[in-house]
Amino acid sequence: MTRTDLERLIRERRSLLCVGLDTEEELLPDHFRNESHPVRAFNEAICYATRDIAVAYKLNLAFYEAMGDQGWLDLEATIACIRAQGDHFIIADAKRGDIGNTARKYADAFFGRLDVDAVTISPYMGHDSVMPFLGRHGKWAIVLGVTSNEGAMDFQFLTVDGGRQRLFEKVMERSVEWGGPDDLMFVVGATRTDVLAQARAAAPRHFFLVPGVGAQGGDLQAVLDAGLTVDGGLLINSSRGILYAGEGPDAVPAARSAAIALQQEMERMLAVRGVI
Amino acid sequence: MTRTDLERLIRERRSLLCVGLDTEEELLPDHFRNESHPVRAFNEAICYATRDIAVAYKLNLAFYEAMGDQGWLDLEATIACIRAQGDHFIIADAKRGDIGNTARKYADAFFGRLDVDAVTISPYMGHDSVMPFLGRHGKWAIVLGVTSNEGAMDFQFLTVDGGRQRLFEKVMERSVEWGGPDDLMFVVGATRTDVLAQARAAAPRHFFLVPGVGAQGGDLQAVLDAGLTVDGGLLINSSRGILYAGEGPDAVPAARSAAIALQQEMERMLAVRGVI
Repeated sequence: MTRTDLERLIRERRSLLCVGLDTEEELLPDHFRNESHPVRAFNEAICYATRDIAVAYKLNLAFYEAMGDQGWLDLEATIACIRAQGDHFIIADAKRGDIGNTARKYADAFFGRLDVDAVTISPYMGHDSVMPFLGRHGKWAIVLGVTSNEGAMDFQFLTVDGGRQRLFEKVMERSVEWGGPDDLMFVVGATRTDVLAQARAAAPRHFFLVPGVGAQGGDLQAVLDAGLTVDGGLLINSSRGILYAGEGPDAVPAARSAAIALQQEMERMLAVRGVI
Repeated sequence: MTRTDLERLIRERRSLLCVGLDTEEELLPDHFRNESHPVRAFNEAICYATRDIAVAYKLNLAFYEAMGDQGWLDLEATIACIRAQGDHFIIADAKRGDIGNTARKYADAFFGRLDVDAVTISPYMGHDSVMPFLGRHGKWAIVLGVTSNEGAMDFQFLTVDGGRQRLFEKVMERSVEWGGPDDLMFVVGATRTDVLAQARAAAPRHFFLVPGVGAQGGDLQAVLDAGLTVDGGLLINSSRGILYAGEGPDAVPAARSAAIALQQEMERMLAVRGVI
């Protein structure tokens, strides 16, 4: 999906919502666990329930790889189901990063076989781990800038180059030399909004995928204040806050309600700021 | 596999050799491509041909994920075949790194379902992306320290903390606080042996997995000079140099010859240095 199409979706759906399908079989209601493919069935139900609200879906690969070959079939089936519901931006949250020939293998796997729009990439190995994901029309690399976990403090905030900037700023500064706002995004965690503003300064025109609204804490208003651009420029992910909003037979309706509540807040803020 | 068992294997086989199974179907000889499962059949042949020489096997996950669910079945079948050949240290070269609950999923998938001994981990997200792989008896995290690709220069060599050390040294210094020499190793590229010596200074007792001997350049003698410990402390990987040493019907015998040539060099150097 091109940037133009993504921005159109944001305006049409009046939403920045990315639904994170971090689906765990053991957390599913009984009526899904009794299905022959519980994860697939639940994902399809969530997808039907949120397709008019969500701009994007993010699939956390670990949750599928943990189920081996069956997990890959669930992943493929879920992506096919999302594709059948109209236009959505689909993210493989894979956090890959490897040398050139291996990165190319991953890019072929994710953009070709899996047919996702974007893949998250860990930057530690540098440009040749990112470049193979760039320059493919309508496909995106989403490089980890600042993450929302505790361990983010270990290395991402180290001062580099004699104190001039921090590692995440350096990563973002270098990455925007490799990819433009049409094929590169960043993961920028929402747990510290001052950091989000610094990240926005480092990459004023690039989309940010913001995890950490919902279960990981993080305040929507502050995220938009710090990260929004004139075209939107944000995809805001919620996983557990939607997937596990309700229990038993109420799970899917509760997921829809939770998604609508987020979208309505987004719509109000987008309108106030003149994006829609 | 515990450290004691790994060191015993090194002494018994007089070898530090890790065979990298970065197998690509399109590069295989015709008689394998005509099999119903070409990658699996080739891996099994390589495994039979090198089982008495190799201490470890490393499976590069990208090459299997590129083939979807069938790739996962090839991966599982290859691991089962290696296990059937006696004691070997099996590494999933996955370069994962994610927040705690996701990292735990990956650890369960790799150590449980796939039954490998070790997983490579990217350190960018910090301690909670590494810890879930530690403290499991006989299982290992292999954290990226210095990699052997060009992009390694982008971030790993940045000076941090006011110039006191470089990022890779900081990563190694912090990581040895999280995991000991019994459950943590490092990836340390062989393309610059001065760097290997600096890495050894940062982690004197931890095993290093050294890629880059063979197709990526790198000189065995220099690697042992800089990285060897009294117990060995090195696993030295060769992938393409072994897998694609010969063509057509000669492929597997040539792979064995290439592996033996490497092992014999290793044996000589290990004997000179008194490790065996």
